Amino acid sequence: MRTIERIPTGIPGLDEMIDGGLPFPSLTLVAGDIGSGKATFCMQFLCKGAELKEPGLFFMTFGGPPEWIFKFMSTYEFGEQRYLGNEIKYIDLGECIEAKKQLNEVLEMIRSLILKFQPKRIVMDSLSSIKDVMGDDYKRLLLKFCKMIKDLKIAVLVTGESVPGSPYPIDIAHLADGVILLHNTEVNLSRRRSIEILKMRGTSHPCGKYAIDISTKGLTVYPGLQL
Amino acid sequence: MRTIERIPTGIPGLDEMIDGGLPFPSLTLVAGDIGSGKATFCMQFLCKGAELKEPGLFFMTFGGPPEWIFKFMSTYEFGEQRYLGNEIKYIDLGECIEAKKQLNEVLEMIRSLILKFQPKRIVMDSLSSIKDVMGDDYKRLLLKFCKMIKDLKIAVLVTGESVPGSPYPIDIAHLADGVILLHNTEVNLSRRRSIEILKMRGTSHPCGKYAIDISTKGLTVYPGLQL
Amino acid sequence: MRTIERIPTGIPGLDEMIDGGLPFPSLTLVAGDIGSGKATFCMQFLCKGAELKEPGLFFMTFGGPPEWIFKFMSTYEFGEQRYLGNEIKYIDLGECIEAKKQLNEVLEMIRSLILKFQPKRIVMDSLSSIKDVMGDDYKRLLLKFCKMIKDLKIAVLVTGESVPGSPYPIDIAHLADGVILLHNTEVNLSRRRSIEILKMRGTSHPCGKYAIDISTKGLTVYPGLQL
Amino acid sequence: MRTIERIPTGIPGLDEMIDGGLPFPSLTLVAGDIGSGKATFCMQFLCKGAELKEPGLFFMTFGGPPEWIFKFMSTYEFGEQRYLGNEIKYIDLGECIEAKKQLNEVLEMIRSLILKFQPKRIVMDSLSSIKDVMGDDYKRLLLKFCKMIKDLKIAVLVTGESVPGSPYPIDIAHLADGVILLHNTEVNLSRRRSIEILKMRGTSHPCGKYAIDISTKGLTVYPGLQL
Amino acid sequence: MRTIERIPTGIPGLDEMIDGGLPFPSLTLVAGDIGSGKATFCMQFLCKGAELKEPGLFFMTFGGPPEWIFKFMSTYEFGEQRYLGNEIKYIDLGECIEAKKQLNEVLEMIRSLILKFQPKRIVMDSLSSIKDVMGDDYKRLLLKFCKMIKDLKIAVLVTGESVPGSPYPIDIAHLADGVILLHNTEVNLSRRRSIEILKMRGTSHPCGKYAIDISTKGLTVYPGLQL
Amino acid sequence: MRTIERIPTGIPGLDEMIDGGLPFPSLTLVAGDIGSGKATFCMQFLCKGAELKEPGLFFMTFGGPPEWIFKFMSTYEFGEQRYLGNEIKYIDLGECIEAKKQLNEVLEMIRSLILKFQPKRIVMDSLSSIKDVMGDDYKRLLLKFCKMIKDLKIAVLVTGESVPGSPYPIDIAHLADGVILLHNTEVNLSRRRSIEILKMRGTSHPCGKYAIDISTKGLTVYPGLQL
Repeated sequence: MRTIERIPTGIPGLDEMIDGGLPFPSLTLVAGDIGSGKATFCMQFLCKGAELKEPGLFFMTFGGPPEWIFKFMSTYEFGEQRYLGNEIKYIDLGECIEAKKQLNEVLEMIRSLILKFQPKRIVMDSLSSIKDVMGDDYKRLLLKFCKMIKDLKIAVLVTGESVPGSPYPIDIAHLADGVILLHNTEVNLSRRRSIEILKMRGTSHPCGKYAIDISTKGLTVYPGLQL
Repeated sequence: MRTIERIPTGIPGLDEMIDGGLPFPSLTLVAGDIGSGKATFCMQFLCKGAELKEPGLFFMTFGGPPEWIFKFMSTYEFGEQRYLGNEIKYIDLGECIEAKKQLNEVLEMIRSLILKFQPKRIVMDSLSSIKDVMGDDYKRLLLKFCKMIKDLKIAVLVTGESVPGSPYPIDIAHLADGVILLHNTEVNLSRRRSIEILKMRGTSHPCGKYAIDISTKGLTVYPGLQL
Repeated sequence: MRTIERIPTGIPGLDEMIDGGLPFPSLTLVAGDIGSGKATFCMQFLCKGAELKEPGLFFMTFGGPPEWIFKFMSTYEFGEQRYLGNEIKYIDLGECIEAKKQLNEVLEMIRSLILKFQPKRIVMDSLSSIKDVMGDDYKRLLLKFCKMIKDLKIAVLVTGESVPGSPYPIDIAHLADGVILLHNTEVNLSRRRSIEILKMRGTSHPCGKYAIDISTKGLTVYPGLQL
Repeated sequence: MRTIERIPTGIPGLDEMIDGGLPFPSLTLVAGDIGSGKATFCMQFLCKGAELKEPGLFFMTFGGPPEWIFKFMSTYEFGEQRYLGNEIKYIDLGECIEAKKQLNEVLEMIRSLILKFQPKRIVMDSLSSIKDVMGDDYKRLLLKFCKMIKDLKIAVLVTGESVPGSPYPIDIAHLADGVILLHNTEVNLSRRRSIEILKMRGTSHPCGKYAIDISTKGLTVYPGLQL
Repeated sequence: MRTIERIPTGIPGLDEMIDGGLPFPSLTLVAGDIGSGKATFCMQFLCKGAELKEPGLFFMTFGGPPEWIFKFMSTYEFGEQRYLGNEIKYIDLGECIEAKKQLNEVLEMIRSLILKFQPKRIVMDSLSSIKDVMGDDYKRLLLKFCKMIKDLKIAVLVTGESVPGSPYPIDIAHLADGVILLHNTEVNLSRRRSIEILKMRGTSHPCGKYAIDISTKGLTVYPGLQL
Repeated sequence: MRTIERIPTGIPGLDEMIDGGLPFPSLTLVAGDIGSGKATFCMQFLCKGAELKEPGLFFMTFGGPPEWIFKFMSTYEFGEQRYLGNEIKYIDLGECIEAKKQLNEVLEMIRSLILKFQPKRIVMDSLSSIKDVMGDDYKRLLLKFCKMIKDLKIAVLVTGESVPGSPYPIDIAHLADGVILLHNTEVNLSRRRSIEILKMRGTSHPCGKYAIDISTKGLTVYPGLQL
């Protein structure tokens, strides 16, 4: 038996549920409904890295100038504006892919950005935009990307949308080392937030749903409050 | 932590639930079933702007001469006929797009209309008609449109239809800064109206469904009546 | 606030629920299951017009010689045989469209028929047959037809089929000024008939389902019997 | 108000529920699950005609030599072998259509068969095989066939399969003058047979499900046993 | 009223539920979930024939050398190894069809195999593999095959897979003379086996589900244990 | 009656439920949700082989350098690092297939790898990646692969993903000799793990779900704890 290197998520309460943090390197899918806190989760992860002086790369397809996502995020306590462009670099994923549509070109572009910025943490929000543009090549890109980030020693978060009848994108979940679901479930006509760790390779983690809260501190997980 | 500029919606009771109004600039999806009050919501938003002397642009695909939507809306107290063509300009979205089917042409047309009328508020009812005409280019148009309206500092409402098994259009919801659902739910064989704020970036908002009422005053939200 | 001109439906009990009648002009979708009374609703509407000396046009795709629908309808008290070919003209919609498949030709044909007969009331039973023949052009035809009938001042009923998982055709419902559902719901293994006004622009109407009855008098709505 | 000519079905108990029989002429869809009694219903209808000296035509796509369906049916008391080839003629619908795939050819073939045999009753089991072979032309064939049989004064039964989520073929149901469902519903892990008249033009019929029984007498309806 | 020739199934308890056996000739669909006993049912049927000196043909698409299915089946008491290649011949259906893809060629091949081996019993496990290879011609092949086996006087079993939302292949069920379902239903988190005769032409059979058991004797039906 | 050779799975508690182990040779589908323990099941199977000096081949499409899956697996007690590259060889299935896309080439490649390494145990994780690349040829490849491994005397595990509405891949399940489901079912908002043997040719096995546990010993089945 061996132990695996860990990287803290920055989400209060979560790391203690997963042997101290995400396996490093690894690719983790964070999936959930609209408004379930996926973007906040990812920002906390990047800001925690910035706090620890670990460079972060934010590949995003957010509908707006990148400054805006930081503007929105700056309403959280952890979202320090000075990180932007310094510890955390953002890349407009959609534009990049539109310019270079060949599988190998896109992959090379991502690799050269990674080699240039030497990130320890990456967020891709979201991979589905790649799917829209690349079509059939998407799955192969996904597979090659997974290998690349492990060769280069990076912890990656990828976001995925829940759609009716499918709580997470199956193809990414299959390849990912970890799958985390954020629920915003309707219970008796109101909504209750929770987190669920479906899978995490090399990690002994609890099953089931645990209460979360979203405040100006971002997400907080309550490992003692199983739903 | 920073604060974000707000713009009032004109819906009694709603602004107090969302830190004073919609983030400005921002793109908000208003989704709901047929008859749930989407069009009324949008007209209240534009008329509130007109009342505040903020120019509004109404891109519409309503099935009828534009005068007619105002005729119908004039049965509400807030719907002053004199706004039409003055504070509120309408554009026949369908015809525009049919004439110019290239992605960049449509985008240029929208941009030049915006630059000409300098609106602070825009309503698009509905984006799905763009989808019908533009096919695959639709998602890229959506992405570029999102960026454009933030560069130009506009608050945009986009309407979306609930269809069985999908309460809102996923692709727009993903890009939007806010997602508001209008429910007209069947409860014990009768219908009960409510509003639900699923997501609003940079805004601390309550979860769950809150009672709404539609009268000659348009929509009224009751923040104290959670369902 | 303004008031809108109204046209009585001829359905006992219904007009008092919708401010005296359908908005005039307007396009109203009447949707429901097989056997829910859509055809009877439409015939009552046309016969009411005939009684008031308002010319009516019946575009139909009924599977049989047009005389037959009148033969069936003549089992109702309101269905006076002498209306046929006089106050109420019928047009075989399917044959017309088959002969002229171009969007503009079909639209011109419909317009010239309308100009020739000068109807105040039109029934289209059903638009879906247009969809079958015209394919992609269908939505644009729908949009242009909506505008035409409002320019020409006509009240139009369009029928739509409920199919499993979709109680009414979404695309027509979006464009229509009103949407009326006829239910024939299975309750405890028996069937209970009801009517529901989902949407009616410019009209303050009750929500929920109200009992209806089908007898030799046709449909009768019981506004006091909410289900 | 007028009355409509009727034709008895031969199903004990059914005619008294529908003003004495099926409207004549008319097209009635008999739909139901596998094993619900559709074929038996149709054979009773044809044999009743044979008993009354009304010629019957049986268009079938049954998987076997036509003699076989009569062999199976001869296990019922009403199924007199001597009708076959005399009062009741059968036509292999599938082979006919395969030989003549053009819309007008198929229609002409059906018309000439009808003119030759002068049937008063026709069964088509099933129309879906026409759909398989004719593709897009199917709906137009259906429409023209409906008109033809009314011009020629024939009562037609058409069978339709229930499939999961769709208890009857929508397109035929829309055109048909009557829709009869045969249920074989699972209730508490056992099966209960029933009949339901969803629609019958010009006929005042009860709604809801009524018990049926299948014995060596074929189907028997119990109008007093509503489920 | 006439009686129909019967052929025993070899399944203890089943024949007494269906007037002594399957109609002869006939085509019967045996459908059910993975692991519900379809293959065992078919082997019992063929081995019963072998015991009665009735030649059997086994068209199979089993994933392995044909000897293997017999090896597995030899763990049942009825599965005597000496039948293989003698009373029971097997044909690799997939390979045959792959070699001859034309409708008439495949049909001719099947016919010549039947004429050569003169089987009284045939099992096809499964027809869906024909569907995969032949595409659109599949339904016509099915129809012609049904006729052929009745002309040639053979009792045929065809297996079909239950898939979510569709307990049996509709198109085969429509043509088949009999449809038998094998259930392996989850009840209170455990599984309960049962058989259900949905349809059997010319046969008066009970409705509902009856308990079955699978042991080293193969399937045993308990006609007295209705679920 | 005959007995069939068996091969132990290495899963504590499982072999006693299936007559001592998997039939040898055979192909077994191991299907389940994300995080249900499929990969762990397969590794235990291979490591058990390694412990018994039986060579194992691991065809994988895991998203990462193959060393990584062993790194993750080494957190289990049975996962001895020294097996890798010795008793257990891994093959990057995706890369192999991408290089040789013709049906026969892929099959030849797999055969030559098998002939070279002479494995007694094979894991394919997962076959669905073959489906993505090979399209229509996939089913024929599957069929031929099944035959090959039985000719060559190998026990094969194939993994399959549960997707909403389909707990296992139907086409593989049909061909496989055994189907094992791993459940991670939500019960009262928590998750409960279990195993279910849906089908195992030539094996008398219990039906229903049995509790399993995942610890540093890997999967343990509790044959006495039926859920």
